[in-house]
Amino acid sequence: MFFIFVSATFTVSLQSLMNNNRPLILISNDDGYTAKGINELINMVRDLGDIIVCAPDSARSGQSRAFSMSPLLMHKVKEEPGLSIFRCSGTPVDCIKMAYSQLCPRKPDLVLGGINHGDNASTNSHYSGTVGIVIEGAMKGIPSIAFSLCNFNPDANFLPMRDLVQNVVKKVLAEGLPEYTCLNINFPLADEVKGVRVCRMAHGRWHKEVEKRTHPAGIMDYYWMTGYYTNDEPEAEDTDAWALAHGYASITPLTVDSTDYKTLENFTL
Amino acid sequence: MFFIFVSATFTVSLQSLMNNNRPLILISNDDGYTAKGINELINMVRDLGDIIVCAPDSARSGQSRAFSMSPLLMHKVKEEPGLSIFRCSGTPVDCIKMAYSQLCPRKPDLVLGGINHGDNASTNSHYSGTVGIVIEGAMKGIPSIAFSLCNFNPDANFLPMRDLVQNVVKKVLAEGLPEYTCLNINFPLADEVKGVRVCRMAHGRWHKEVEKRTHPAGIMDYYWMTGYYTNDEPEAEDTDAWALAHGYASITPLTVDSTDYKTLENFTL
Repeated sequence: MFFIFVSATFTVSLQSLMNNNRPLILISNDDGYTAKGINELINMVRDLGDIIVCAPDSARSGQSRAFSMSPLLMHKVKEEPGLSIFRCSGTPVDCIKMAYSQLCPRKPDLVLGGINHGDNASTNSHYSGTVGIVIEGAMKGIPSIAFSLCNFNPDANFLPMRDLVQNVVKKVLAEGLPEYTCLNINFPLADEVKGVRVCRMAHGRWHKEVEKRTHPAGIMDYYWMTGYYTNDEPEAEDTDAWALAHGYASITPLTVDSTDYKTLENFTL
Repeated sequence: MFFIFVSATFTVSLQSLMNNNRPLILISNDDGYTAKGINELINMVRDLGDIIVCAPDSARSGQSRAFSMSPLLMHKVKEEPGLSIFRCSGTPVDCIKMAYSQLCPRKPDLVLGGINHGDNASTNSHYSGTVGIVIEGAMKGIPSIAFSLCNFNPDANFLPMRDLVQNVVKKVLAEGLPEYTCLNINFPLADEVKGVRVCRMAHGRWHKEVEKRTHPAGIMDYYWMTGYYTNDEPEAEDTDAWALAHGYASITPLTVDSTDYKTLENFTL
């Protein structure tokens, strides 16, 4: 009986979203569906389209573009006119694949990731599940935007981002993005942002990434991923890290095509 | 006592690798330390340097550049002159971070990923743990090469790759690679390869990615990630997918800097 009930509600969701011509916006995150950031994002874009949320059932930070080889579960959390929320036991990328395949009545007009609690700038975007979401969206030919706030506080204030979020979403819904391009947007830890800069990804690196500890009974060692990140080019004003360090929001266009074309021209075996 | 024993052997490993001037090669994979592919790779490069292997304790396919937020374990599997093998409970990227921080007596001269059982060409390199390894290596400023064979068979024949592996490793040890560049090398399913092509990443996409099934007792639905991939540009002779489909090995230089510079020039809010 439970199986029949679940199937029936999925169908209702699908029908309610097929009965109008508003943009269809698919949202996920890597902090889990209960995080403040994703719920603030839903509120910010609620008037701009019909929304399907499929987000991890708990935090999946650092999951990058990973997908799952094990079976996944998905459950409906909420359904209102123009808004359906599902939680999924997989990674952020799994959530996009699940929603695209199982929930969306048509190809979404937009994929949004976030708003992440904590920055996803510079080379750290490689590790980010929030960025994984928009790489996946771009691979599916859907304009996609990741939003992150440089504040890990679970109760962070996301309201200073609202105008930027709404302006970028409206622009991308109207104009689209080039094929295989997505946007990685980071917002500084500031109540008043100085402005918005379109930036390249800064180069940087992690230090002291692993800390060894010993079991209380001394029977084994275990290891935590930790450490700190430094910017290799702190004076480079054209980077996302510079923008954020100086009170600006950053918009970094990322490409799915990771080919290094300069090396491609020169490499011979 | 176990704790002391483990610490002591780690120190021996470190000392044995500091006593000569051979290149230091760090190897990992995403199929796990027992897979045939990584053990064949070790054999192929054994004479070219001292080798530290830190690989997942079981298969971690599709883990991309993910790292772990939970504590990790690491155990020594084997130590011989010039070769130390460790298994780790984390992702492929965790393995590189663990080895770099806890095992390597100095910065490695080379990071190798693979040999993967199955291809990691075109946009699928985003999901690949094998490619995650070399993105991580390149982020650490270490020349890094991912090797994959287009054959998922656990007992696949890797020997046709030996000359290519050894030639590329020798070249990169001698010449290095540009900063933030790594190589993604795929080998076709063929006993005789037609040649080697330096290629860009092909564009493509997945279809029918999720299959829904129902619990035997009907109490819930569950979902498998599955499906098939198609090449969006099968006629493009400059791509990795074309090379592999036509019997050539492919070398695709990848960059850590994912900035889309063309969009960066044109994007205004």
